[in-house]
Amino acid sequence: MRKIDLHAENGFKDTTFSVFHAHASPYTKVVNFNFEPGQELPVHSHDIEGELVLAVLEGEGEFLAKDGASMPAKAGDVLISDIAEPHGVRAATRMRVLVVIAPPI
Amino acid sequence: MRKIDLHAENGFKDTTFSVFHAHASPYTKVVNFNFEPGQELPVHSHDIEGELVLAVLEGEGEFLAKDGASMPAKAGDVLISDIAEPHGVRAATRMRVLVVIAPPI
Repeated sequence: MRKIDLHAENGFKDTTFSVFHAHASPYTKVVNFNFEPGQELPVHSHDIEGELVLAVLEGEGEFLAKDGASMPAKAGDVLISDIAEPHGVRAATRMRVLVVIAPPI
Repeated sequence: MRKIDLHAENGFKDTTFSVFHAHASPYTKVVNFNFEPGQELPVHSHDIEGELVLAVLEGEGEFLAKDGASMPAKAGDVLISDIAEPHGVRAATRMRVLVVIAPPI
């Protein structure tokens, strides 16, 4: 059992989103992405089995999908996506996003 | 790909914490627990393999562990625990907690 204080562990960067690898095990991988307004995790995918759970912890922006599609994303929103399905995030405000990958990449 | 608005889907109950089963698949199970101040998910465990990722989305309280142990828990805190390890949550304020279970129970 291990507690992680994401606010203490991960900040923000001017140049690009800030990534903090919180946890990796045979069961899951946990990553925290922090975005300044306008920063983006570009749409991408990995051709492997499994799912991603993206949870917006703070702020507002968009979940990005294939062919330029997007959905508004705000604190309390969760996106479930196959790892193989194109996905991304764009921030409108400062945004903290938690990603849980199962099984881990 | 599916977006879930936890604020829209799950509220609060006077009698006990409010549970919303957000997602279940062969890879993971995603559950949202909302607590009024003082409400508690009692310490429990399941004797199976796998891990839990508990993320505090809003509010403050405690992560509970075996033998009466506890750790302060606030928005942005994440607890990683084996499913087999005793774990629980107690709310001090209104609290929204996201739980991702991998592999699913």
